[in-house]
Amino acid sequence: MSQNVYDQSEFFENYVKLDRQTKGLDGAPEWPRLREMLPTLKEAQVLDLGCGFGWFSRFARSGGAARVRGIDLSEKMLEKAHSMTADDGIAYEQADLENLTLPDDEYDVVYSSLTFHYLTNLPSLVAEISRSLKRGGRFVFSVEHPLFTAPTTPSLVVVDEDTGRKAWQVDAYQQEGLRTRSWFVEGVHKQHRTMSTYINLLLSSGFRLTDFVEWCPSQEELKSNPGWDVELIRPTFLLVGAVKD
Amino acid sequence: MSQNVYDQSEFFENYVKLDRQTKGLDGAPEWPRLREMLPTLKEAQVLDLGCGFGWFSRFARSGGAARVRGIDLSEKMLEKAHSMTADDGIAYEQADLENLTLPDDEYDVVYSSLTFHYLTNLPSLVAEISRSLKRGGRFVFSVEHPLFTAPTTPSLVVVDEDTGRKAWQVDAYQQEGLRTRSWFVEGVHKQHRTMSTYINLLLSSGFRLTDFVEWCPSQEELKSNPGWDVELIRPTFLLVGAVKD
Repeated sequence: MSQNVYDQSEFFENYVKLDRQTKGLDGAPEWPRLREMLPTLKEAQVLDLGCGFGWFSRFARSGGAARVRGIDLSEKMLEKAHSMTADDGIAYEQADLENLTLPDDEYDVVYSSLTFHYLTNLPSLVAEISRSLKRGGRFVFSVEHPLFTAPTTPSLVVVDEDTGRKAWQVDAYQQEGLRTRSWFVEGVHKQHRTMSTYINLLLSSGFRLTDFVEWCPSQEELKSNPGWDVELIRPTFLLVGAVKD
Repeated sequence: MSQNVYDQSEFFENYVKLDRQTKGLDGAPEWPRLREMLPTLKEAQVLDLGCGFGWFSRFARSGGAARVRGIDLSEKMLEKAHSMTADDGIAYEQADLENLTLPDDEYDVVYSSLTFHYLTNLPSLVAEISRSLKRGGRFVFSVEHPLFTAPTTPSLVVVDEDTGRKAWQVDAYQQEGLRTRSWFVEGVHKQHRTMSTYINLLLSSGFRLTDFVEWCPSQEELKSNPGWDVELIRPTFLLVGAVKD
């Protein structure tokens, strides 16, 4: 079973204050690029894995999705999602994504935002996703970028005293597995995977890669958000689109 | 026109002493993984871009390739290739890969080892490669890994004095373009590209991605070559296979 940090009060109280929770999808800088990877949602059967407050599930319905199924491990997240939703076309459900069985040939779109890097057993979930997608169906997801998750100790941008050069310290890119981070609380468990592991998981599960974005702010976005310049040093988000063959 | 460092005597004299030049393909640690990406070479029309001493061109012929065309910018490399080859089925040719026109629908296999990161105008070459491959033909290449090329100043593995932790300093992953390196001689020009740039170049040029390897030594290889442990910190080689749709 996955770690459920979202249901820890101290974590949750801080998490809900993030832009991407208060403002929804538009509070997530990478959302516009992820949205571009989506096919039409009109009449689509949609699965939202790690749905959180349900921002994407509601977006999908507003885009014409026939039905949306949102799954999350966190009770607190789902409570909040329920409180924000009045729509019979959306079904929220509590489940552990590491032990999920999905129906055959059911979905047109499977979406997941910043969830997979919490899961130990991603291969079995990707196999389920592949089986549950209709042929030609789309799989669109984001994860924390492998360069971001690579360091074994909480890594910072280090400034060289002599040159002023800022650099990200990568110490174990090829060593996959647990990374323990401090994020609102101590001991948040994440899983580091290499780029090849993500890509080969798709290629070996019946997907064809269609979109691949290492998110980077535009010059315009940097002007409004100067702090995002750390993204030029190394990306935080990897956005991927694939089609079921 | 690309920089032609290979024809500088000081560079060439050192370069020829590398394992991958004296021993050929078997002197290149990443070769076995790259070889796995190749289809059968029997009766194949093969193009070898940046053929150097012609090790791969001769390998392709020994694997049954009908004809091999090897292209390189360096006269010294081609002289050496000619001196090692007595085979009418292999044609070596001097040309600048940045200004290459290839025939339509001609090749079954296009191969390139550690060459593309020297080229400024890679998009036009990839378009030529795509046009010149038969449908279903394979494109197999290696480049220096984006994590390896990213640093703007010659980057080293830095050891933290307190913890002993070794780390690779990534300071400008998203800033693509020229990187000047010292490699036998000063001022060797390389081009840094992100992972998404390489992948999207393929996806937008009519290729389907089939293989993607961030080369890493096995435990056994590490025992025989302890110095290769730096590859666990960050990969040096990216190996890619694609098929023309």
